[in-house]
Amino acid sequence: MPGDTISVGVLGYRFMGRAHANALARLPMFFPDAPDVERHTLVGRDEDALSDAADRLGFAHTATDWESVVDDVDVFYNLGPNHLHADPSIAALEAGTHVLCEKPLARKLAEAERMRAAAAASDAVAACAFNYRFVPAIRYAKGLIADGKLGEIRQVRGRYLQDWLVDPDTPWSWRNDAALAGSGALGDLGAHTVDLARFLVGEQVGAVETVSGTLRTFVNERPVPDSDERRPVTVDDAYTAQVEYASGAIGTFEASRVADGHKNDHTIEVHGSKGSLRFSLERLNELAFKGEHHRGYETILVTDESDPYVDHWWPPGHVLGWEHTFVHENYEFLSAVAADETFHPSFEDAYQVQRVLDAVERADERGERVALR
Amino acid sequence: MPGDTISVGVLGYRFMGRAHANALARLPMFFPDAPDVERHTLVGRDEDALSDAADRLGFAHTATDWESVVDDVDVFYNLGPNHLHADPSIAALEAGTHVLCEKPLARKLAEAERMRAAAAASDAVAACAFNYRFVPAIRYAKGLIADGKLGEIRQVRGRYLQDWLVDPDTPWSWRNDAALAGSGALGDLGAHTVDLARFLVGEQVGAVETVSGTLRTFVNERPVPDSDERRPVTVDDAYTAQVEYASGAIGTFEASRVADGHKNDHTIEVHGSKGSLRFSLERLNELAFKGEHHRGYETILVTDESDPYVDHWWPPGHVLGWEHTFVHENYEFLSAVAADETFHPSFEDAYQVQRVLDAVERADERGERVALR
Amino acid sequence: MPGDTISVGVLGYRFMGRAHANALARLPMFFPDAPDVERHTLVGRDEDALSDAADRLGFAHTATDWESVVDDVDVFYNLGPNHLHADPSIAALEAGTHVLCEKPLARKLAEAERMRAAAAASDAVAACAFNYRFVPAIRYAKGLIADGKLGEIRQVRGRYLQDWLVDPDTPWSWRNDAALAGSGALGDLGAHTVDLARFLVGEQVGAVETVSGTLRTFVNERPVPDSDERRPVTVDDAYTAQVEYASGAIGTFEASRVADGHKNDHTIEVHGSKGSLRFSLERLNELAFKGEHHRGYETILVTDESDPYVDHWWPPGHVLGWEHTFVHENYEFLSAVAADETFHPSFEDAYQVQRVLDAVERADERGERVALR
Amino acid sequence: MPGDTISVGVLGYRFMGRAHANALARLPMFFPDAPDVERHTLVGRDEDALSDAADRLGFAHTATDWESVVDDVDVFYNLGPNHLHADPSIAALEAGTHVLCEKPLARKLAEAERMRAAAAASDAVAACAFNYRFVPAIRYAKGLIADGKLGEIRQVRGRYLQDWLVDPDTPWSWRNDAALAGSGALGDLGAHTVDLARFLVGEQVGAVETVSGTLRTFVNERPVPDSDERRPVTVDDAYTAQVEYASGAIGTFEASRVADGHKNDHTIEVHGSKGSLRFSLERLNELAFKGEHHRGYETILVTDESDPYVDHWWPPGHVLGWEHTFVHENYEFLSAVAADETFHPSFEDAYQVQRVLDAVERADERGERVALR
Repeated sequence: MPGDTISVGVLGYRFMGRAHANALARLPMFFPDAPDVERHTLVGRDEDALSDAADRLGFAHTATDWESVVDDVDVFYNLGPNHLHADPSIAALEAGTHVLCEKPLARKLAEAERMRAAAAASDAVAACAFNYRFVPAIRYAKGLIADGKLGEIRQVRGRYLQDWLVDPDTPWSWRNDAALAGSGALGDLGAHTVDLARFLVGEQVGAVETVSGTLRTFVNERPVPDSDERRPVTVDDAYTAQVEYASGAIGTFEASRVADGHKNDHTIEVHGSKGSLRFSLERLNELAFKGEHHRGYETILVTDESDPYVDHWWPPGHVLGWEHTFVHENYEFLSAVAADETFHPSFEDAYQVQRVLDAVERADERGERVALR
Repeated sequence: MPGDTISVGVLGYRFMGRAHANALARLPMFFPDAPDVERHTLVGRDEDALSDAADRLGFAHTATDWESVVDDVDVFYNLGPNHLHADPSIAALEAGTHVLCEKPLARKLAEAERMRAAAAASDAVAACAFNYRFVPAIRYAKGLIADGKLGEIRQVRGRYLQDWLVDPDTPWSWRNDAALAGSGALGDLGAHTVDLARFLVGEQVGAVETVSGTLRTFVNERPVPDSDERRPVTVDDAYTAQVEYASGAIGTFEASRVADGHKNDHTIEVHGSKGSLRFSLERLNELAFKGEHHRGYETILVTDESDPYVDHWWPPGHVLGWEHTFVHENYEFLSAVAADETFHPSFEDAYQVQRVLDAVERADERGERVALR
Repeated sequence: MPGDTISVGVLGYRFMGRAHANALARLPMFFPDAPDVERHTLVGRDEDALSDAADRLGFAHTATDWESVVDDVDVFYNLGPNHLHADPSIAALEAGTHVLCEKPLARKLAEAERMRAAAAASDAVAACAFNYRFVPAIRYAKGLIADGKLGEIRQVRGRYLQDWLVDPDTPWSWRNDAALAGSGALGDLGAHTVDLARFLVGEQVGAVETVSGTLRTFVNERPVPDSDERRPVTVDDAYTAQVEYASGAIGTFEASRVADGHKNDHTIEVHGSKGSLRFSLERLNELAFKGEHHRGYETILVTDESDPYVDHWWPPGHVLGWEHTFVHENYEFLSAVAADETFHPSFEDAYQVQRVLDAVERADERGERVALR
Repeated sequence: MPGDTISVGVLGYRFMGRAHANALARLPMFFPDAPDVERHTLVGRDEDALSDAADRLGFAHTATDWESVVDDVDVFYNLGPNHLHADPSIAALEAGTHVLCEKPLARKLAEAERMRAAAAASDAVAACAFNYRFVPAIRYAKGLIADGKLGEIRQVRGRYLQDWLVDPDTPWSWRNDAALAGSGALGDLGAHTVDLARFLVGEQVGAVETVSGTLRTFVNERPVPDSDERRPVTVDDAYTAQVEYASGAIGTFEASRVADGHKNDHTIEVHGSKGSLRFSLERLNELAFKGEHHRGYETILVTDESDPYVDHWWPPGHVLGWEHTFVHENYEFLSAVAADETFHPSFEDAYQVQRVLDAVERADERGERVALR
């Protein structure tokens, strides 16, 4: 395929649809060596909204059934709600179509296992869109860890705090429903944390071996939009977890959608035998680093030309935003597709994340520290 | 012109050229009610580089002389170095072509006055690209001040710190040359501060009436790239100033290109009789606000749907970057062009800024507090 | 006893001995209504060091056996290592001597239970020195919570990070020994966190009902000072825990002595249905508060005359230090002694903390979420 | 005098009286090699209040006239309002009595000159109480600069923001009166900034050579307590200044008593050819340092045993407060007295500060950049 235009079909045209369409649109100007991409077909249910979105997001065609699309394009972006991740992604992979699926990979571990098996059986690239791996400061942090600047990693701490559900009158949506979403804060936010921790320190600490976990729902029903109905919330508003890694390192993870005052506060901290680091998504251009020759944390604005991806953008100090992570992610994914190379985070990577999410749920139910399944 | 496509000619294809081309490219997806724009002609001197840039930035044509372009397009973007601001902009305005000129408007006040006169004599829109007016947090801050949340404004403090010239071996460029740039940190950075202060509090405090100023050059010559030559630095590396406003309010402004550890730290602080606020460009999604019912500053992440421009982008907490200011600026400018409406910051606005810059230089030379000319 | 001078005997003359002696010495100038205190007897083992310390700390007498002291003074301060908390404190209480015992109350729950029983059987005041309850910002925070400013409390997060054991050559001390200390980071630091969380939100969320916990030792032996010996570390370097409260609220606690870059970083965060707050010991004059009418956290410098204890000290903005918590604590404790009133934190309070520490250890051993014993 | 007890007479028993009395009281416990001090006589006007204060602050005697005291004690602490600085201090020095005088040294330069002359003519130690020189983080910062870690110093920025006069109904006091205070924010706060800048970088940049300045009064009269009267404010609420040093370095200074939201925010920043640093009084245990091998600022908690003065206090991370600066200051001053050594900051140092304050006032009046007198 190198040299050819890659045709992309996209399921989902709301938040994630816009984020990825924007990323695709920006590649030619800022990543000129990225493969050419045709925004081919946008898939959705509501024909009017779909047609408007296709116009706006630059898609040539629309479709209301994904079945017709998954083998009609080179690459399939699965940006639908969680309950739509498995079947279309598997169908695409079976058709040899490359897949980029939003996170969490699946609602439950068994579903993730089916998807991973499909990926393993396919020659196509099967990617999961953990976009925070593509923050320059995170890549820079990974480099510091790989270079031994933190020594032996001992402790990891990740938390992802939002507050959009603090108001009990925030309307019910599929994200509040176990059948559609699988879980709540755990899958939506926790998946990011588990993946990011794995990306940063996985080579040093090995796999998560045991998990203790707690899930909690604070608001038990929510109003249905344009209706008098209140529908039950069947997922967690918050989770907390403790993990043990193969190396003996330990970690704590948590997330909340009811942490008042926090909009998108994904903070990850790592302590090693020689140093520490801290990253926070609301200030995503910054990394706090404490190395062997420091007394305290150095606040680094990771916007120099030599920083990961930054040479594609602006001079030092001209900060990037959240959406740039999608540009980098799409660049790497499409380049892997074009070059027929492996890509991470893959379905396998996302499956490993799902094993941890599954363990959190089992640990909570059983009131035990559980081994991964 | 409403409803028609606006053809744009752009002089300059490096840093600012990319920032504006990117902004133009992003409008359709995020500001669908923006006028249609054709990236018509890109103007530069080096034909090869120009041709590459035009391809990448999406321009249909190139030209090496601006004279042929300024009356061939609807809108002329003057993104060249400072010594090229006046003549092409004036020619365009005389041709009835709308102009968006980068800041500072001119090298010196007399030049700015010529440009302002040309703007006054033309029916075209004459805009100066003070992009920081278009940061959501700044717009939000302006609203707080206009609503009286700070009471009577008494003190303003602005500083713009960079460090790219701290290394004496950073190569010489036109930005170090008085004939080409007019001034150094003063015009390049100080112009932003003076404009932003005026935008935020001008309606409350009136015009700057007197100025005391100091300019300083710390590194007196710099190496010329690909040469053994060292060329003199004839502009300031840093300036400081004190101002008095018509209302009796006072302010301090300063900028430096040798403030080690600061990449793009434009901080502005305002104190009034009822409250205070603080904004810093390296954390441009945040505003610190202290109102009448606060004890200390509240750190507001200005990313809610109700915040200026934010509804066009992402959900709360999904932070924007530096480049988004250009999208907002281009949106407002092109909308004004299409609707035949006035636009701010105009050449008149930029001329008022230039009067302050001029006063800083005169105050420094004469060792006096000077009135504006 | 009101009106009379209270004679104090103190066991321990190092870190805590100095902190409390300083507090006693400062009361007359800053808390003139505090009871008069005589620093009567200082108790220790090394006669020379003890004599020097008594001179410096202002004690009239010294003793090498606590047995002779506990019924010879009005009040007994037990500032010895953990293994010396129980017997002298119990003996003092049995003698009707008031006791202020350093935290954690005991090495293990059974020991704490003996101490609590002695306190219950005695008319004397039995206090445990959880000094962070006496930080003005913490008192202020408690008031905000009590006033309902955070609504219904849902989540608590406490962590206490130090790094003095990150170096494997930091010498062995009693703090590394299970027989002498009971536990490591858990008892030394975690006790503070558990108590502070209870102090802040206990009335809202009720008791801790279940605990999941993990303990970890990263450096397994340490050099003995002035010797070639390396002695095993038999306590935890770090712990993590999840808790569930009676109300359904949840929390995460953790501490580490190997968190490089953190000296004394005790951070506690609370989220409720209407607001949040955050406190950090290294900036102990500050409280971050997000209430119903805030968009983000307000950083409050808790140094106004109206703030708890502050009217005894300096004008607004003249910050207090760590040691002031001891002055406040001693003031309250001695005032309670003089007035024959109850005092918190009591042995009962400290016993409740110990139940949580015990549960963390049991949960870790059993790999289960355990109920409190 | 070494070995003997030093008798101290103190004029003033309010804010500064308490701060110094506390410092004297704390020396024996924490600085055992400090000279012995007798708090001999407390001087004031109101006999009842004075007697109470003497009891509380530990003075053996009281006096309502300073004349009788200045040659009756070894050391005279002049902590009165500014208009009482000159005569008692001069009388003491003429009597051979050592003097510690609060800052600013005098109301006006001529008065400072008289005091400096008296100091020069006396064998006694003449000290001015610029206590911020004795903050551990400031001493540490000075060491970094002296060691060349910042390279050649180019820019200094100092600001001292308070808000206790933001309310127009804050009562009139001597601090609002030119005859009693000399100046307002300039002398009260600016003196600290000018001295601290001089302490930190004076050896590198030489003396201040020129000054431009602005003074402003925003609230022109204030209510007199227990009266219907409103009395005019005849001093500045805020000042701003630009300075040029002998070396060519430049600086900006400012202070305000109406900067809403700032309680005691004295921030000083230094930029050199190799690095930068930043200190802020409200977080006085911290220093932000950017050296040659840093990308950004490192936040250092200056509480290690190896940090200046810290070995006298507590373990790392147990933060000090504002008042500790007075303990360090008194320790150094009294040690110099006992050893018959010179002490800084001296009257000569304070006179140099006063020359800058004087220049700010003259520059403001004349609307010129003025040389120091």
